[in-house]
Amino acid sequence: MKIRHYSLEQFLELVKEFHGYEAPGVVIGGFMVDLAYGHLPEGGLFDAVSETPKCLPDAIQLLTPCTLGNGWLTVVNVGRYALTLYDKKSGEGVRVFVDTDKLEPWPELKTWFFKLKPKNEQDSDRLAREIREAGVEILGVQNVKMPHRFLEHRKRGSMAVCPECHEGYPLDDGPRCLSCSGKENIYTTRNK
Amino acid sequence: MKIRHYSLEQFLELVKEFHGYEAPGVVIGGFMVDLAYGHLPEGGLFDAVSETPKCLPDAIQLLTPCTLGNGWLTVVNVGRYALTLYDKKSGEGVRVFVDTDKLEPWPELKTWFFKLKPKNEQDSDRLAREIREAGVEILGVQNVKMPHRFLEHRKRGSMAVCPECHEGYPLDDGPRCLSCSGKENIYTTRNK
Repeated sequence: MKIRHYSLEQFLELVKEFHGYEAPGVVIGGFMVDLAYGHLPEGGLFDAVSETPKCLPDAIQLLTPCTLGNGWLTVVNVGRYALTLYDKKSGEGVRVFVDTDKLEPWPELKTWFFKLKPKNEQDSDRLAREIREAGVEILGVQNVKMPHRFLEHRKRGSMAVCPECHEGYPLDDGPRCLSCSGKENIYTTRNK
Repeated sequence: MKIRHYSLEQFLELVKEFHGYEAPGVVIGGFMVDLAYGHLPEGGLFDAVSETPKCLPDAIQLLTPCTLGNGWLTVVNVGRYALTLYDKKSGEGVRVFVDTDKLEPWPELKTWFFKLKPKNEQDSDRLAREIREAGVEILGVQNVKMPHRFLEHRKRGSMAVCPECHEGYPLDDGPRCLSCSGKENIYTTRNK
């Protein structure tokens, strides 16, 4: 059993190292990414969308060239456990999702996915076993075409020095940066 | 010269592998994370904020336990090149930012930071050299206290099956998932 270029055990090690623990969602995410690549032409350059910020983005960041910081991974939080890999230019791609109809044979997985029991009442060993045994069997695949806004590569405009905090910020944001203008105030105390 | 537990060369290798190339912003981000830890108590558990989605989140993900998928990294896009590491419980932390007053001795770095020339007219070798030589000299440090909303750990509510797409989604989002309700429609064509 391979997850991209890794054995399952190698991938689980990577997950622990990067994500902090062997999270069920990241392991399932590994099967999802692998399945998506299996439906895409070899050697293509694909951007990624995750439909949830939870767990799945880390499987994508570990197994594709797409990261949050390089801009090739976008999170569109619609709360679904699904990802899409799509051609950067054409927008054509493949979406992989958890098919809820296919969860029936895996009671612990279903319990985890729908949160039918509190975490401390779930059987984590059984869950891990079911995830490995189920593999891609709980997944569905769709062909999708991404809307234009996912293909545009917006150039950042000019940078300026904010007159208040004296830091660099995108001039498009207005006469002050979004923090100093109060539109996104995140700090309660500051001593510069 | 060390970037956390790595030599600079080891860190640059990690950056290439994860981010795809030795992006100036991620390298500077490495110095920023390292400086932040130097101002924090040893062995603490810190969450992270990046004030930009560009590059900096990857330095954080490579050098701290915080990732997008495990929820310990939050991006608050105010367009500033700054990060904060803060105690998960108290909200007390350290913010590191690029101090624009300190860029003068580094002309290529300043040109890159403020985008004073188009990319193809910038001298990338000189930029890389200046970034390494400058190290933490271009940075500033502040003590901050994060507002309460960064400390709350919202529990996800129940999951349900969306009557339209038949996928799992958070019931709090309404009678249908945010995609099917049209609030976040990201796909133009689908063939399930």
